[in-house]
Amino acid sequence: MTESTSHRFSDQEIAAVYRAIRERRDMRHFTDAPVPAEQLARLIGAAHDAPSVGFMQPWRFVRVTDRAIRVALHDIVETERLATAEALNERADEFMRLKVQGILDCGEVLIVALMENRERHIFGRRTLPEMDLASVACAIQNMWLAARAEGLGMGWVSLFDIAAVQRLFHMPADAKPVAVLCLGHVERFYEKPMLQEEGWAQRLSISSCVDENRWPAPLADSDE
Amino acid sequence: MTESTSHRFSDQEIAAVYRAIRERRDMRHFTDAPVPAEQLARLIGAAHDAPSVGFMQPWRFVRVTDRAIRVALHDIVETERLATAEALNERADEFMRLKVQGILDCGEVLIVALMENRERHIFGRRTLPEMDLASVACAIQNMWLAARAEGLGMGWVSLFDIAAVQRLFHMPADAKPVAVLCLGHVERFYEKPMLQEEGWAQRLSISSCVDENRWPAPLADSDE
Repeated sequence: MTESTSHRFSDQEIAAVYRAIRERRDMRHFTDAPVPAEQLARLIGAAHDAPSVGFMQPWRFVRVTDRAIRVALHDIVETERLATAEALNERADEFMRLKVQGILDCGEVLIVALMENRERHIFGRRTLPEMDLASVACAIQNMWLAARAEGLGMGWVSLFDIAAVQRLFHMPADAKPVAVLCLGHVERFYEKPMLQEEGWAQRLSISSCVDENRWPAPLADSDE
Repeated sequence: MTESTSHRFSDQEIAAVYRAIRERRDMRHFTDAPVPAEQLARLIGAAHDAPSVGFMQPWRFVRVTDRAIRVALHDIVETERLATAEALNERADEFMRLKVQGILDCGEVLIVALMENRERHIFGRRTLPEMDLASVACAIQNMWLAARAEGLGMGWVSLFDIAAVQRLFHMPADAKPVAVLCLGHVERFYEKPMLQEEGWAQRLSISSCVDENRWPAPLADSDE
């Protein structure tokens, strides 16, 4: 294993990677302090370093700098928030008390979308065409971790009508928005995932998510 | 911005996070050196620290320790490799020369799947039900980066018939396998993504993936 040992980062570097993974949070509370352009470029660069199925690099980013567009985007999300509450039935009131986005508050808003003309990419997608989304999610997770290390918060908002966002940004019909990213400075990072802090859902035990050679038996939710 | 500055990791920690992001590779070449159980547990723990839509934690892991199951899994992937080659038409020969998996060689094989009973999770999924997959991809990206920091390679294989993998692991009908992960020690990490090294696809310029307030105009592929 000598050859592998040489690929290992230093203990300090390994700890830093695990720290970013552990302390990253899906943020909804932001201050309006700006994000410098070169910092934003580093974060998008981190996204672009993600793996992608068949190396198709399906991620596209639209940076929202026009205030009117940001307000329109907020309205689209607010409409879907109400529709989601209605769909949640008995949990509607509980849901409506949660903060689900920081679009009007945060330093930067980005749309992340799947590119057009994806059907010609077959490698790794013949039986799982949705692997393009998996690649985009890996890119967003890279950004999330890099932002956390740099002291910035990020939130992934997926409460929106797809056609409305496509229209707002004049997207081709076969491009698909999958994220409204809120990015920026924060007063504090949540100690636990906000939905856990707020009691929306509990942390599953790892053991209930893993098994050997067979499907893990579904267990009751439990605190770790 | 003083409050945000205090959330920033040290310069060394930030560099470590970016190093993991930059040097992570989708690996297909492995040695058969084993992965210690506690190291595997750390990596699955990193996955479990991922964000998830509505905190639903939809990821399930099956560790393949039975050699016969590993061989059966390899056969399923090989069948799909041939089907993909046929679908690729004029690029079939080029595709068949690429190594697409290391299932029989690597130290550990894991199946990652979307859990059963997902339809009751509506938060963030009413218009985008596929956000469950996005969460699982974020979890896998966490593992990928942690593994790279620890000097281990990982590959995400998505060439398989879904029903065949479901049957092999006796999954509930509404659970869905999305990844065969090959994990283990490697002789070397590819300097660039393997499909870029092999000429399968070129790296896009970042500028062709980003625009402001509007959809980025599609550009020809180019080296960065």
